[in-house]
Amino acid sequence: MKGDSPSIAALAIGDELLSGEVLDTNLRSIAVALSRLGLVVTRHVTVPDEIDDIVRDVRLMAATSDVVIVTGGLGPTSDDLTTEAVGKATGSALVFHPHLEKMLRDFFGSLGREMRDENLKQAYLPEGAVEVPTAGGTAPGFMIEYDGALIAVLPGVPREMESMMDSHVMPEIEKRFPASETTTTRRILTFGLGESDMAGLVADRIGAGPVKYGFLVMGGPIVVKLTASGPGAAAVEAMLDDEQKKVEERLGKLIYAVGDETMEEVVGQLLREQGMTIATAESITAGMVSSRLANVPGSSDYLVGGVIAYGIGEKTKVLEVPDELLREGAVNRPVAEAMARGARELFGTDLAVSTTGVAGPGTGGERKPTGTVAIALSHAAGEMSLERKLPGPRNMVRNIATMAALNLVRLHLVDPGRAEHFEPDTPEGRE
Amino acid sequence: MKGDSPSIAALAIGDELLSGEVLDTNLRSIAVALSRLGLVVTRHVTVPDEIDDIVRDVRLMAATSDVVIVTGGLGPTSDDLTTEAVGKATGSALVFHPHLEKMLRDFFGSLGREMRDENLKQAYLPEGAVEVPTAGGTAPGFMIEYDGALIAVLPGVPREMESMMDSHVMPEIEKRFPASETTTTRRILTFGLGESDMAGLVADRIGAGPVKYGFLVMGGPIVVKLTASGPGAAAVEAMLDDEQKKVEERLGKLIYAVGDETMEEVVGQLLREQGMTIATAESITAGMVSSRLANVPGSSDYLVGGVIAYGIGEKTKVLEVPDELLREGAVNRPVAEAMARGARELFGTDLAVSTTGVAGPGTGGERKPTGTVAIALSHAAGEMSLERKLPGPRNMVRNIATMAALNLVRLHLVDPGRAEHFEPDTPEGRE
Repeated sequence: MKGDSPSIAALAIGDELLSGEVLDTNLRSIAVALSRLGLVVTRHVTVPDEIDDIVRDVRLMAATSDVVIVTGGLGPTSDDLTTEAVGKATGSALVFHPHLEKMLRDFFGSLGREMRDENLKQAYLPEGAVEVPTAGGTAPGFMIEYDGALIAVLPGVPREMESMMDSHVMPEIEKRFPASETTTTRRILTFGLGESDMAGLVADRIGAGPVKYGFLVMGGPIVVKLTASGPGAAAVEAMLDDEQKKVEERLGKLIYAVGDETMEEVVGQLLREQGMTIATAESITAGMVSSRLANVPGSSDYLVGGVIAYGIGEKTKVLEVPDELLREGAVNRPVAEAMARGARELFGTDLAVSTTGVAGPGTGGERKPTGTVAIALSHAAGEMSLERKLPGPRNMVRNIATMAALNLVRLHLVDPGRAEHFEPDTPEGRE
Repeated sequence: MKGDSPSIAALAIGDELLSGEVLDTNLRSIAVALSRLGLVVTRHVTVPDEIDDIVRDVRLMAATSDVVIVTGGLGPTSDDLTTEAVGKATGSALVFHPHLEKMLRDFFGSLGREMRDENLKQAYLPEGAVEVPTAGGTAPGFMIEYDGALIAVLPGVPREMESMMDSHVMPEIEKRFPASETTTTRRILTFGLGESDMAGLVADRIGAGPVKYGFLVMGGPIVVKLTASGPGAAAVEAMLDDEQKKVEERLGKLIYAVGDETMEEVVGQLLREQGMTIATAESITAGMVSSRLANVPGSSDYLVGGVIAYGIGEKTKVLEVPDELLREGAVNRPVAEAMARGARELFGTDLAVSTTGVAGPGTGGERKPTGTVAIALSHAAGEMSLERKLPGPRNMVRNIATMAALNLVRLHLVDPGRAEHFEPDTPEGRE
């Protein structure tokens, strides 16, 4: 190794990244993959489709890093220069591989299309390189040794890159750098308080033990990150388990998941376990709550249907919200409760959740200020609801309202007895 | 200048970017802002919150670039080291600014909170730096000269960064590098064919004139990019206008917008102009069509409501889809048409659009393969519909189906007489 711990550099290639036309998500994917081995990217550089830039940066990175992960520029067109540049940087001639030509011709044949001659360049790899087979595309990747570094070269298309990283590059990295000390981060996902208040509730634990705390704002949800290091995975997991218990004692139901689960997966799992069905009645979120629920494969087992009541008239007509409730405006807890009750009756579900609010800009004639939302849940024994003033522009208000609605369903499912004396916390939000 | 054209480097600072916890979107925002002056980022580097890394890269970039844009690490906590590092890199001592302390105290006061002492570090700037006032946060940025380069230092929070870039950094860059040759890219947004077919329709224009063509796949929509350069904005716009006409002759109604408009903005504008109202009936998209329509401020003028009919029973009950239609399964054009008709009648709107389909994984008992979607529009004179097999995983199918549904509304609104002999194109999709 070139330092105390493995040093890993990543090089992204492509004019479209530097021009802003394409958002690079590969750095994040690579970093997340490496984190499973307790490794981090130490430096990330983006260069244009220029052969001299690529050659220079590959060599610089190889000189100072143990692993260099190069992405992009493996396509068939004239501005795809990565294979040529890495060949030049490592002093390796390009070698034609007949089996790659066959793979390319088969790929186009399966689509009923002729292969163009320019695709043939994808059948060349630098001499001495180990092929990383394609994953759904036409571009093979490769790994090559140079200057004491492993250089892994992968396509820029995120899905192909991620798949090839997992299947070939990660195993090679793990072989070279079996983790001596394991570092693991556990993400505890919370909703219902802002960052500083959430941090305040666990303040007595910060610095009190060997587990490090971090906080991440995700526009509504706050992630409490616990990071521990130790000689082996089992010891580290035990440290995290202990600390997680302490966090759970302090945050309780503010925690909706641990790990990478989404709120809709958590709610879906609870509905499935309890054999419950759900419907939605949405105004301000106009379908966001139901489409989030439907993100989860198999959600048709519990998501029955929904009504989007964007106009006041529809609240009355389809959801049977009494006229007299709407005289005070459409954004308040009684209207939200009547909407949820109406949806539960219309669809014959166990539960229904509703949203109404003022997304802005402007109040659209409502008396309440922009950002006001009312959210309700209807269940067999009645309704529970909340009203809050949310910060931020239109679509941030709608996003947080969506999370808050799903969270209300979750709170009911984890502790239905509490519905009567429900006192919700304020969902704060920041970008 | 250090080269033939202004050379602009960008440095992103933050462990959270290299660990994959936060996706960097600032490079893209910076690149898009610069593109308005015909400038591009020539190199982008991400480094950890380590003072030595920051000092080294700021100096390296200053030596080879005319402008260095640094983002991140201006916060109040102990791992925010950027001001200190830039001071060190440029040999400038940090200077305390009483007006910044006052600004910080006022900021916390307005939230009804005490300022912590550690926030005081945000009142220091390197000597000789020009302050870039905060935009909604607590972190001021600054600009400083070093080694013939303008170094602009901005917070990493995207909203603050973008605002401060626009208000202070871009004007300074424009003053230094008034565009001698203007380069402008115009984006023509299309939907209905895949990239290669769309390119095929304009193949005779590629290389035929001074305007350059590019194609960008956005998972459903295909962007045709026209790029022209010339001595002044007026001449360039005229070249692009001419070429755009040629593209319009060839692509016709496949074009849904020019520029940055979204499909829902285009559809919303058409509905507003024609004084039409709309409702939705969604199964596979489960609220995505209506929530996309509701993304647009003021959409309550035309979006009346919608039904999410996720279960078969709800298609029958709420939307009054005849039972006998559903015997053949829920994914076909007659069912989609009955759903749209049902929603139009329920909400009393001029138009209604519907989606039904098999999102996968698995077919959920449907006879049609995963990825099959049927989409329909109901209007005063009848229904129009299409059925397609879409590629990709669950949420890609749902996204393309949403776009296709909105596009069907658009096609009807731009040319209602064609509803009878409507023959839709295949929306292809790739990531």
